[in-house]
Amino acid sequence: MSAMSNLESDTEMPTETAEGWLSDEDLESTRAKVPIVYVDAVPVRVDGLGLVTEVGMLLRQAADGSISRMVVSGRVLFGELLREALIRHCEKDLGDLALPRIPPNPSPFTVVEYFPDRARSGFYDPRHHAVSLAYVVPIDGDCEPTQEALDMEWYTPEEACSPEVIDQMTSGHDRLIRLALAHVGRLP
Amino acid sequence: MSAMSNLESDTEMPTETAEGWLSDEDLESTRAKVPIVYVDAVPVRVDGLGLVTEVGMLLRQAADGSISRMVVSGRVLFGELLREALIRHCEKDLGDLALPRIPPNPSPFTVVEYFPDRARSGFYDPRHHAVSLAYVVPIDGDCEPTQEALDMEWYTPEEACSPEVIDQMTSGHDRLIRLALAHVGRLP
Amino acid sequence: MSAMSNLESDTEMPTETAEGWLSDEDLESTRAKVPIVYVDAVPVRVDGLGLVTEVGMLLRQAADGSISRMVVSGRVLFGELLREALIRHCEKDLGDLALPRIPPNPSPFTVVEYFPDRARSGFYDPRHHAVSLAYVVPIDGDCEPTQEALDMEWYTPEEACSPEVIDQMTSGHDRLIRLALAHVGRLP
Amino acid sequence: MSAMSNLESDTEMPTETAEGWLSDEDLESTRAKVPIVYVDAVPVRVDGLGLVTEVGMLLRQAADGSISRMVVSGRVLFGELLREALIRHCEKDLGDLALPRIPPNPSPFTVVEYFPDRARSGFYDPRHHAVSLAYVVPIDGDCEPTQEALDMEWYTPEEACSPEVIDQMTSGHDRLIRLALAHVGRLP
Repeated sequence: MSAMSNLESDTEMPTETAEGWLSDEDLESTRAKVPIVYVDAVPVRVDGLGLVTEVGMLLRQAADGSISRMVVSGRVLFGELLREALIRHCEKDLGDLALPRIPPNPSPFTVVEYFPDRARSGFYDPRHHAVSLAYVVPIDGDCEPTQEALDMEWYTPEEACSPEVIDQMTSGHDRLIRLALAHVGRLP
Repeated sequence: MSAMSNLESDTEMPTETAEGWLSDEDLESTRAKVPIVYVDAVPVRVDGLGLVTEVGMLLRQAADGSISRMVVSGRVLFGELLREALIRHCEKDLGDLALPRIPPNPSPFTVVEYFPDRARSGFYDPRHHAVSLAYVVPIDGDCEPTQEALDMEWYTPEEACSPEVIDQMTSGHDRLIRLALAHVGRLP
Repeated sequence: MSAMSNLESDTEMPTETAEGWLSDEDLESTRAKVPIVYVDAVPVRVDGLGLVTEVGMLLRQAADGSISRMVVSGRVLFGELLREALIRHCEKDLGDLALPRIPPNPSPFTVVEYFPDRARSGFYDPRHHAVSLAYVVPIDGDCEPTQEALDMEWYTPEEACSPEVIDQMTSGHDRLIRLALAHVGRLP
Repeated sequence: MSAMSNLESDTEMPTETAEGWLSDEDLESTRAKVPIVYVDAVPVRVDGLGLVTEVGMLLRQAADGSISRMVVSGRVLFGELLREALIRHCEKDLGDLALPRIPPNPSPFTVVEYFPDRARSGFYDPRHHAVSLAYVVPIDGDCEPTQEALDMEWYTPEEACSPEVIDQMTSGHDRLIRLALAHVGRLP
């Protein structure tokens, strides 16, 4: 397991399913050849009217090595439904008591295209070309950031769009947060 | 209060707010002049992955006087937020224990244009021209149909699109159900 | 026609259809009783890949009397389809050669709730409570602002979100522009 | 090149870009390990109000070997934007004069999950697990089906949902057509 780098450990679960398994070597070679399917989940708190009151962000090591505020993000495995990947990554990053509510509608609020070339789309991942389906996921329970996440914090829409918080985000995740807030009508 | 017909009583709450109040007479004259803002809520049950497993329909007197399977539907009052109207109509029709989950995204999955002319859009309301914003609303709690609803029943997606159930729906509500099921990827 | 105020003339066409007609007096009394159905159209230029390159804004007198940068906006008449209202207002505000492309999907990218109370939703209209369905409308042809519009200008996404342009917008239209840009993945 | 089957030639362009290139062998091994990113485009004709009047379907050999009515569908290459993949596949399948209008909004109307296991999602592809982002694409020009397509035909919404046409579709494409028609409010 020592071959699993920090960067990999959050997105790969080699022992999890036989079907979805890729050795590190295979993963590297695959990543250089085809776009990788990802899901991004923006955790939110909603009030009784369904209005988003807060957005949650993890603090952890991003794909580019920086310590960054981030949304929940990870790979979809071979044979796995998008909904299964969403639940798996939410539980892995937010803990078993988070009670995420995956939306009934399968279409993402936006599609994020991450490229190793920073200028291509504004969304950056040095490891690969990833096509990530992004969802807003209301969280009913308590979050307990697990594994390599250093912290998890809730921000109001205004805070999430403030220069202080934006400065803590890399790879375009600050823009992803604003797209999510716009989708729910809460962009300041 | 005897002037309140059965048809009206489900959509108007004359004593509720001073602002939203319209006498029956005023309502009639307004209806002949401008489109009326409505919300339609399609109640659904979802599983742990957010997948829709069942769709709920009321049995009650429709706008055209027929006894019909219907979704939750009603007027938006002056000064009222769409979210407030959605919660109000869900609670009025499904009871206080239904625990409806209004979606965070304010944009409806479709817009239904009801006309007194049956041929105009396929959605029919003899009373007025209504523009209805339609939402899929997951229901967490127990439904207890109230007031003039005779019954409330849950159907699987397959049942909801079967000729037996479609035959119980008028005014285009059978088509609205299919649009909702398509939106959540569950149209058979 | 002298009774038609500047504020009214852009949204009402009293001689247009018998059905949709409201005298100024009737309109005033209706506005105090029910929410009014509106459509907002955000005109955009797109490139060959469908990517939004510019957003168009009119300069004209807003509902609150200020001279403001605005999107195309207007009332839906009794008996009128939303698509018909969208085309009518685009042609009225942008000229007959604009060639607007109304999107096939009837659901708006957001719903704007305008209230006479500034604090209610952040979208303000002193005249009434309006529920406005907002669409992004690609424009293929040439725009020639008509009637009471003083000017029409195209902005890049970055310009449209700059303090200089935002300062020219009132009633929340700057936020509406940002929601539209987020919807098409072009919010800076 | 003889190893390139008919089925492959529509989705792979091995000489097109150095980055996107995969040998047949590599493609096979990749397909067994990760989900493949696809785009599906449902070609439509729209009227002046943006209303969908017809939906286009190709007649050609499907992934399962059957001759089937199908929408435009193909792989996204490494380094390629989704918009570029959409244009490329539309032009390849419908000809250079089709003038497809890729929608400004990057989020698909639905996500189709194709699995080698027929029961997994109802969408079937014996070759791989594909995650396909599906878009409704208005076609302004003339279609001239190219390469291995035997025919291209336009259907009204009613025809597209008739048993005669549904019987010509395999792999779940009949359901995809109904989801597309529902999205644009035209499901019968």
